[in-house]
Amino acid sequence: MAYTILDKESVCGVLSQIAEVADYFGDDEIEATEIGDGNLNFVYLIRSVSDPAKAVIAKQAVPYLRIAGEGFPLSRERMTYEIRALLAFKELAPDFVPDIYYTSEEMSLLVMEYLGDHVIFRTRLLEGKQYPHFAAHISSYLAETLFHTSSLFLQSEEKRALMDRFNSNTELCKLTEDFVFTFPYMAHETNDSDGVANNTPLAERIFADMPFKERVLELKYKFMTQADALLHGDLHTGSLMVNAEETYMIDPEFAFVGPFGFDIGALLSNLVQNYIHHTIVTGNETHKAWLLETIRDTLVLFEQKFLALWDATETSALMIPGLLNSESKKSYQQKFMQGILHDTIGFAGCKMARRIFGIAGVADIRGIEDPVLRAQAQERVFEVARVFVMEYDRINSVEEIITTLKG
Amino acid sequence: MAYTILDKESVCGVLSQIAEVADYFGDDEIEATEIGDGNLNFVYLIRSVSDPAKAVIAKQAVPYLRIAGEGFPLSRERMTYEIRALLAFKELAPDFVPDIYYTSEEMSLLVMEYLGDHVIFRTRLLEGKQYPHFAAHISSYLAETLFHTSSLFLQSEEKRALMDRFNSNTELCKLTEDFVFTFPYMAHETNDSDGVANNTPLAERIFADMPFKERVLELKYKFMTQADALLHGDLHTGSLMVNAEETYMIDPEFAFVGPFGFDIGALLSNLVQNYIHHTIVTGNETHKAWLLETIRDTLVLFEQKFLALWDATETSALMIPGLLNSESKKSYQQKFMQGILHDTIGFAGCKMARRIFGIAGVADIRGIEDPVLRAQAQERVFEVARVFVMEYDRINSVEEIITTLKG
Repeated sequence: MAYTILDKESVCGVLSQIAEVADYFGDDEIEATEIGDGNLNFVYLIRSVSDPAKAVIAKQAVPYLRIAGEGFPLSRERMTYEIRALLAFKELAPDFVPDIYYTSEEMSLLVMEYLGDHVIFRTRLLEGKQYPHFAAHISSYLAETLFHTSSLFLQSEEKRALMDRFNSNTELCKLTEDFVFTFPYMAHETNDSDGVANNTPLAERIFADMPFKERVLELKYKFMTQADALLHGDLHTGSLMVNAEETYMIDPEFAFVGPFGFDIGALLSNLVQNYIHHTIVTGNETHKAWLLETIRDTLVLFEQKFLALWDATETSALMIPGLLNSESKKSYQQKFMQGILHDTIGFAGCKMARRIFGIAGVADIRGIEDPVLRAQAQERVFEVARVFVMEYDRINSVEEIITTLKG
Repeated sequence: MAYTILDKESVCGVLSQIAEVADYFGDDEIEATEIGDGNLNFVYLIRSVSDPAKAVIAKQAVPYLRIAGEGFPLSRERMTYEIRALLAFKELAPDFVPDIYYTSEEMSLLVMEYLGDHVIFRTRLLEGKQYPHFAAHISSYLAETLFHTSSLFLQSEEKRALMDRFNSNTELCKLTEDFVFTFPYMAHETNDSDGVANNTPLAERIFADMPFKERVLELKYKFMTQADALLHGDLHTGSLMVNAEETYMIDPEFAFVGPFGFDIGALLSNLVQNYIHHTIVTGNETHKAWLLETIRDTLVLFEQKFLALWDATETSALMIPGLLNSESKKSYQQKFMQGILHDTIGFAGCKMARRIFGIAGVADIRGIEDPVLRAQAQERVFEVARVFVMEYDRINSVEEIITTLKG
């Protein structure tokens, strides 16, 4: 199907001609509502008129920034990578990825399950809502996707083929390089977005903190060059939809083959920022205790599940039977997992620090209305972020992370 | 030009129709001699009949292993990567790469300068011949090629485009993964090539040396995942042609984007093995002293030249002006260069150890005719290799390397 931009009027007609969508709706008449509140893409909710519980989401990228209009061109290739990543992750961790009904890279179009019973995880965390299954879910998702797209599982030719499919996601990787690892640490026009100015005392302290910035660059270099596994690339709590029983990952348009610790670190940074929000704003100790437990469980379960998958793998690009004995494999694995933990902590630190001034703050911190409390929260975010970034390769256990957060 | 296999009879006719080759020879009649002693490709020397000093080399890959015949299929894509690498390196370090007259990926064909006045570096090193300019040359070649293909110089989109051009050199990368980092450390049918059996006491010691093998796997993982810069990929002393005044790199068919330290480590390992050869076989102290000086100069000059290029670069994928101050940039650079040295030492250790039993030994060691001396040399190779592999990230200066070699 050649590329044409769909709108509320044309989308139903086009979708009716797609066999997978027609199958889903049967003979029902369908109607479309535009629901996208994102900056980038058009998103339509397509429902059966007679049975509104039957619904799918159609998401299309346009060759410009949706929120800004045609005057702001932006390659619609981002949808190519979102499609490829969704299909890859659906295969690896089906319970945590929405059902995909149809994809077309040519049309930059994706038709998928409507998660009508789920909400954005960040929204609920701000309300102090707890999800007892979250750590179990997300640790499975992370272990399955990261392990199975790495050289610890794949053969070399499979790994290189995977890299080929994502290597050219240049535009969105560059956004991360700039907006997570560079601009937030210097006076830059893209900072200072919602009243948090480049010239506050905290900003000036960060911009002048050269030892911190050297470490950030170390992590930036890892981000750019360390091709461990296929990443979501932007796994914050706004990219997760949850209800009491289920957890779904969405919006993986930043996907590329990068360091193991980056997705886990993104998640850790968001849980930490929610913890700081509740410390400063609500004092909700029950929620805070659950957050610490969730952080601990997520990291510990991730390691257990990742190692279980590894133990079950005899042959990969890295290892073949007969090379190491089992004691030696264990010792190798232990050091390897420690490396993942180090990177996780370092990336979490960068992902936190970038939220203080950089473009696109998180609601947990930037959304605090009282300017005094917001400043306190920002101070605390930087305090923790700085420990994470400066000490990332010297923090060797999950308990040390928890201690830092409590401290 | 569609792919056809050239032979001694057809090669002159085909080459005459290539404008660049026709320009070179003018109206001269040309003749071809097959000179390839390689295992993989056909190599022809094309000369002017009237003026044999006018000559070029034509190199063509066939879809099988040349030495074994059509019954042993092998993708001729290797020539695609050799062509791409030669063109890239010629642009970056023109003094150290033969002139390229014509390339065709479709024909798997390369026409280049005939280095009639040069000999294989390894051959001359075995004879105890010294090349006073070598360290200056190779350090320039390494600094220019590695720096300019890294994220310290390129922009992100350029780096990703470069990776795209080499990412699929899967077959040859796999050869290195298997034959440098895996098979030589276990009983494997591909070892035991020229009378050096899997069941010698030294072999058994290596195969049982689990701490050593864990470290080898650490380095193998870096080789597979650390995308620093475009590498030659097989830069041993047999891939270098020299005379008193000039140094040329040849045969970069293993090229891919990998860790900085791999090419430098390959070179270091070969110089060390030549040092061990002369220690055990000839006792040529003048040559040994020159080798130590060459190792020292190569590593020190490489670092100086690499840093000079870096100092002259304000903007890259990694850094932009205003992010670090100059003192801080120096401190970042120092740590970065130490990382390159560590990897260099580790990879040198693997490249040495693999030569003891693995397929494709080096003449410096495996070619020692007296079995007692050869066994001594092999013991010493492993002794040094083991220090390099076990201590690679704790050896912080070139002088420590020299001390290890003298020890």
